[in-house]
Amino acid sequence: MNILIKNVAAFLPTGEVATKNIFIERNKIAGIYDALPVDFKVDTIIDGTGKFAVPGLINAHTHASMTLLRSYADDMALMPWLTEKIWPVEDKMTADDLYWGAMLAAIEMIKSGTTAFADMYGPFVDSIAKAVIDSGLRASLARGIVAVAPGAYEKLEDSVRLYNTYNNAENGRLTVMLSPHSLYTCPPEFLKKMADTASKIGAEIHTHMSETEVEVSDCLKNYGKRPFAHVESTGIFDNGTLAAHGVHLNDEDIEIIKKHNIRIVHNPGSNLKLASGIAPVTRLLNEGVTVALGTDGASSNNNLDMLEEMRLAALLGKVESKNPEAVPALTAIKMATENGAVAAGLKDVGKLEAGYKADITLYDMRGANWRPRFNPLSLLVYSANAGDTDTVIVDGKILMDNKNLMTIDEERVYFEVEKAVERLIG
Amino acid sequence: MNILIKNVAAFLPTGEVATKNIFIERNKIAGIYDALPVDFKVDTIIDGTGKFAVPGLINAHTHASMTLLRSYADDMALMPWLTEKIWPVEDKMTADDLYWGAMLAAIEMIKSGTTAFADMYGPFVDSIAKAVIDSGLRASLARGIVAVAPGAYEKLEDSVRLYNTYNNAENGRLTVMLSPHSLYTCPPEFLKKMADTASKIGAEIHTHMSETEVEVSDCLKNYGKRPFAHVESTGIFDNGTLAAHGVHLNDEDIEIIKKHNIRIVHNPGSNLKLASGIAPVTRLLNEGVTVALGTDGASSNNNLDMLEEMRLAALLGKVESKNPEAVPALTAIKMATENGAVAAGLKDVGKLEAGYKADITLYDMRGANWRPRFNPLSLLVYSANAGDTDTVIVDGKILMDNKNLMTIDEERVYFEVEKAVERLIG
Repeated sequence: MNILIKNVAAFLPTGEVATKNIFIERNKIAGIYDALPVDFKVDTIIDGTGKFAVPGLINAHTHASMTLLRSYADDMALMPWLTEKIWPVEDKMTADDLYWGAMLAAIEMIKSGTTAFADMYGPFVDSIAKAVIDSGLRASLARGIVAVAPGAYEKLEDSVRLYNTYNNAENGRLTVMLSPHSLYTCPPEFLKKMADTASKIGAEIHTHMSETEVEVSDCLKNYGKRPFAHVESTGIFDNGTLAAHGVHLNDEDIEIIKKHNIRIVHNPGSNLKLASGIAPVTRLLNEGVTVALGTDGASSNNNLDMLEEMRLAALLGKVESKNPEAVPALTAIKMATENGAVAAGLKDVGKLEAGYKADITLYDMRGANWRPRFNPLSLLVYSANAGDTDTVIVDGKILMDNKNLMTIDEERVYFEVEKAVERLIG
Repeated sequence: MNILIKNVAAFLPTGEVATKNIFIERNKIAGIYDALPVDFKVDTIIDGTGKFAVPGLINAHTHASMTLLRSYADDMALMPWLTEKIWPVEDKMTADDLYWGAMLAAIEMIKSGTTAFADMYGPFVDSIAKAVIDSGLRASLARGIVAVAPGAYEKLEDSVRLYNTYNNAENGRLTVMLSPHSLYTCPPEFLKKMADTASKIGAEIHTHMSETEVEVSDCLKNYGKRPFAHVESTGIFDNGTLAAHGVHLNDEDIEIIKKHNIRIVHNPGSNLKLASGIAPVTRLLNEGVTVALGTDGASSNNNLDMLEEMRLAALLGKVESKNPEAVPALTAIKMATENGAVAAGLKDVGKLEAGYKADITLYDMRGANWRPRFNPLSLLVYSANAGDTDTVIVDGKILMDNKNLMTIDEERVYFEVEKAVERLIG
């Protein structure tokens, strides 16, 4: 199917915003033009007047199915939150639960303009893959392995199966990484084994790194090294790594990040909510590190709204570096698009450019919060809310048209989620 | 007119949420009941099923008409932002401009669930009063005076005229305070004169305090005292004070705040965007200080969305105090409602309770971001967005019904704002 988005304010890779016509041929952007070429065969025309087209937002670190635990346990210290609330319920989750949780996440992501996500969850990753297939979103999936729990090596084998089954499936909409949950839940010998496996099959790694001060001090105590140096010694960073959080970093950590081209995913909402700290994003960006954005799971955020993460990244970047010019709107948008694609290992994604995949979100600029319109980039980052999301296209397919979901039966999802939650928690 | 809101999840003053029927008689809440009394004469019934009723949010520090400058100048250092961008345009603003700017603000406030605001702006406060009267919102108005500019004492006289004209006008929907912009724009002799005037007419004060480190160090240099001690010596705090910001505070400052029952309005979005710092909100709350929330002007935020300020207050409170239990959702909501009413000096406002004024917002809980619904308070603070705002009632009058504005012709406002901005900036 070919789509023409007519007369739309488009965010171009140069950072400029200009009124353009965007042509989509099958799953790719065919061209972005001032005029309407006469020879382009169009199946669907979308009127872009009063709308702002950006590359679909990329949620580069989340646990989608954790939407099932949204608002179940908040304003708590990390360990009682995990041990008394989150983990006991997660233990009871079935394959179906993970599917409906991921579908609930898909609704929320689409409705706020997210087109792709990098997920870390389990054990039933096939369910999450099915939700990605059904919803039409793009995703990098990973079975997060807590290797101190029983069956770690079987889980690693299952991860290889997932890789062989889903990596580059659905015309490339699905990709797969290997995922050690963290250095404090995975002993070094397991990390070494996973690094070997990743190298053998050519998979990249998705993991948590340096989220809390305790993680750093415990790592020093247990291994005599800071987290990045310790994990580096296992070989985990040798095949390409998406590292979520990166809150507590020093010079040595940043050298290792740069040496291995580790992509850091900043999760400002979650880092604040769990009182983990504020990541040194300005410094990382200045040092040329790829910094992307993620929401983390809905139970520590509590939403999957990337507009909020962009705003938080721009706002926190300023206060953290005591510089109101830090992390300007343009940078925040690039973190949520271009950098997100790099972090999640998605090829030809994250820019409105001919040849790139047609993952595009249109925001409605007609509301009061979008007026006056001196600078659409500022408006998107500092003023917009999820309710402004108008149209979402992934891989050339329209997932939301004029605020209407096209691929998901919302009421069915809500019904199934309620049923699941009733059973899990009551 | 009598209104019945039927079968609604209501946030009660106890902090609980329960399904209730809310009866509104003229401009007040007549009662909140489990059953439907048969003898209550109802003109309008609102079906509250699937909706969450909270006291209308109170934006306790803003400059409403600055919406005209939204997205005009962002990601800049404070002084070039003010001197090169904001002030030159403000100098050109007419009485009409301030009216349309305030009307644009009114649309945005209503659409995100704000029912009252404490404003500081000028010179044409009559225009802002007219926008409050026309929109149906509740407001505490104040002409902010920069006394280092010419005509300060005439402006103070005009503030007295505004007080005599509008304080308690429109059935109490309008109130008026006196407003020295700040200690760094008002010499001590002017502050003394304003304090005398306030005492004479019985007006309270709305001012900026301790927003930046530079304000504190300059005050020490110029007056040999920190901001609160310096301003205290002028008598400004003797008649009741709303102090916006309060970012840089020490023990001595907090003693003065407590001694005079100064209400601090925390503006987290603006404090981050201008890199001013993070206010010690947890400590202030622990010491029993009334802390409310504000957006500040749309040019340093860039929206007037109090849902965002609640979320930021809850999130920053945790990271600032390194305690994930700090500023829980309930506290954030109280800051935006009860405390906002106290800060802005609004009587019988800020709670869903019989005898209180009928300022009520209903949020639609049907979206994916509101599921599952373990805790509506967490959902409102951490998951909701402005697009979820459904119905807004102020002083017993419906300003928004099922997402439709009832008092404002949106298209007219957008047309006039565009015309004004074209003339002001081009």
